[in-house]
Amino acid sequence: MEFPGFILDTSAFSELQKPDESTRYDMLIIGGGAAAMSAAIYSARKMLSLALLSIDFGGLMNEASEIENYLGFQSIQARDLASRFEAHVKGFNVPVNLGVPVVKVQQGNDFFMVRLEDGKLFSGRTLVFATGERHRELAVKGARDLIGRGVSYCATCDAPLFREKKVMIVGGGNSAFSTMLDLMRVNAEIIIVNVTKGWQADTILLHRARQYSQIQFLDYHELVRINGKERVESATIRNRESQQEETIPLDGIFIEIGLIPNSGPVKDLVELNETGEVVIDHECKTNVPGFFSAGDVTIIPHKQIIISAGEGAKASLSAYDYLIKTSQI
Amino acid sequence: MEFPGFILDTSAFSELQKPDESTRYDMLIIGGGAAAMSAAIYSARKMLSLALLSIDFGGLMNEASEIENYLGFQSIQARDLASRFEAHVKGFNVPVNLGVPVVKVQQGNDFFMVRLEDGKLFSGRTLVFATGERHRELAVKGARDLIGRGVSYCATCDAPLFREKKVMIVGGGNSAFSTMLDLMRVNAEIIIVNVTKGWQADTILLHRARQYSQIQFLDYHELVRINGKERVESATIRNRESQQEETIPLDGIFIEIGLIPNSGPVKDLVELNETGEVVIDHECKTNVPGFFSAGDVTIIPHKQIIISAGEGAKASLSAYDYLIKTSQI
Repeated sequence: MEFPGFILDTSAFSELQKPDESTRYDMLIIGGGAAAMSAAIYSARKMLSLALLSIDFGGLMNEASEIENYLGFQSIQARDLASRFEAHVKGFNVPVNLGVPVVKVQQGNDFFMVRLEDGKLFSGRTLVFATGERHRELAVKGARDLIGRGVSYCATCDAPLFREKKVMIVGGGNSAFSTMLDLMRVNAEIIIVNVTKGWQADTILLHRARQYSQIQFLDYHELVRINGKERVESATIRNRESQQEETIPLDGIFIEIGLIPNSGPVKDLVELNETGEVVIDHECKTNVPGFFSAGDVTIIPHKQIIISAGEGAKASLSAYDYLIKTSQI
Repeated sequence: MEFPGFILDTSAFSELQKPDESTRYDMLIIGGGAAAMSAAIYSARKMLSLALLSIDFGGLMNEASEIENYLGFQSIQARDLASRFEAHVKGFNVPVNLGVPVVKVQQGNDFFMVRLEDGKLFSGRTLVFATGERHRELAVKGARDLIGRGVSYCATCDAPLFREKKVMIVGGGNSAFSTMLDLMRVNAEIIIVNVTKGWQADTILLHRARQYSQIQFLDYHELVRINGKERVESATIRNRESQQEETIPLDGIFIEIGLIPNSGPVKDLVELNETGEVVIDHECKTNVPGFFSAGDVTIIPHKQIIISAGEGAKASLSAYDYLIKTSQI
């Protein structure tokens, strides 16, 4: 499956219009995060015939915590911001197919064909491909078996389970430190383990972390295995300088070691870079005419909500210009 | 003067920190619109030494009316949105120099020197140039002489003066039609004149305009001159098909014929396109290392607030990466 995500109660969206398989849409938007939602708003205002295909609304925003850098909101919970985005899209009554992942995108003559996991097919004259990224999983013993039993990829979801418990965070970037903030709020005892040398998080997050007393920084350390039968009991780490191993008793472990672009469905169609990100130019064009892409699935190195929102709008307007120039609308 | 704008009551900003001419900043942000403000937030969170130099906060947003396409706000007055942006920036206590335009940007060894109209000089290791655009003026008789006496470039500011009056709008794009919405709300009798063939505004705006009874569409017509001694009395237009001229009595005339990038201060430093926009790539890099640019002043064809906000964040993060890679921080 290309787009793992939590199970959505789609009955909540029954008021949404359903897209029609027999229609050839001016535009199909694939994805449901900030880039896709912003594209939907811009395309709806152009009164294009339009459908949005996504496993959910919000994407990885549903797993983030407090957002302080989306221009216009000094501080807002990521889920609240995603809800505002969703309401904004729903205000335009865009046909939406939720809950089923896209498995393949192919090109016909002057149109694209999108196949969903349930066999449904949708066709569109242009595409805005904005499927975002998913968490990179850790390939060590115990990491997969103990998911939901102490191993977590989502601090927003699971931090409250670790009040005053002892937890390890694996990772050294902004998402690792953002996880840490969530765990600080529940007074957890924290060990943060970073496999490379040097922390990559924003200085402001490092400062906040250093003000917390119950924290241990283990730079240049590697997680070797997670131990436990029914649930996480301890983790074994290795000091990459001394090669010395140590086993630390734990209640939980949060893994924040990066993201993988959800570009599988288009890997045979459009140019990707070596990490699988869709190659775009400054106007969100790809190497395939009529195929536009935006947000975290693209080569834009900075994965940020405000950037995705801007890129989505840009991709929509570039696709609109393409439809006009090729006299398709 | 490179950046005309309204006069600002800078006393309202006395609580802001003043930038220091003797400091070499990690980053100077030039401009005060959405791109500059979003860049400021991202750079402040990186704890860079930072100053923002601008004639005002908000830029052309201060002249726009209702905004319905900034993801997260279904409908908000542009000034209210600009105020939220400003409050967001002020929350980070960034040193700000307001009210004085930048006249020249030059490059030294490993730094940039920015000269203001009052002679002040600021130096920075990187630049985020985000000065936006200004209104294109109309070069016909009467257009300059009668500004403020019936000729306006700002519907948000002036539409209320024309309640139930007869007004002409010159232009055929989104800004012309957005001006029209403002004039519809004050029950003005409207004539809209478009020099090219075909209206370029969003379909949704065209639909709304067509529902208004007191409106006359004059496509492929040219404004020849504005007549009046003390104030606007009439306008003479020419049908570009038949070449026939006609003089129409009027109370006012709104000019919305496009925008000019505020790139004058950097025209000898950085690559511009034929219309004077700063050439950037998908990461907001220019051809000059350390010089980043974002928003309406760049070659991104779609001049939209959400796009500028995204581009500003991107330029900030690209500049931050540059500072790290060149070991300047």
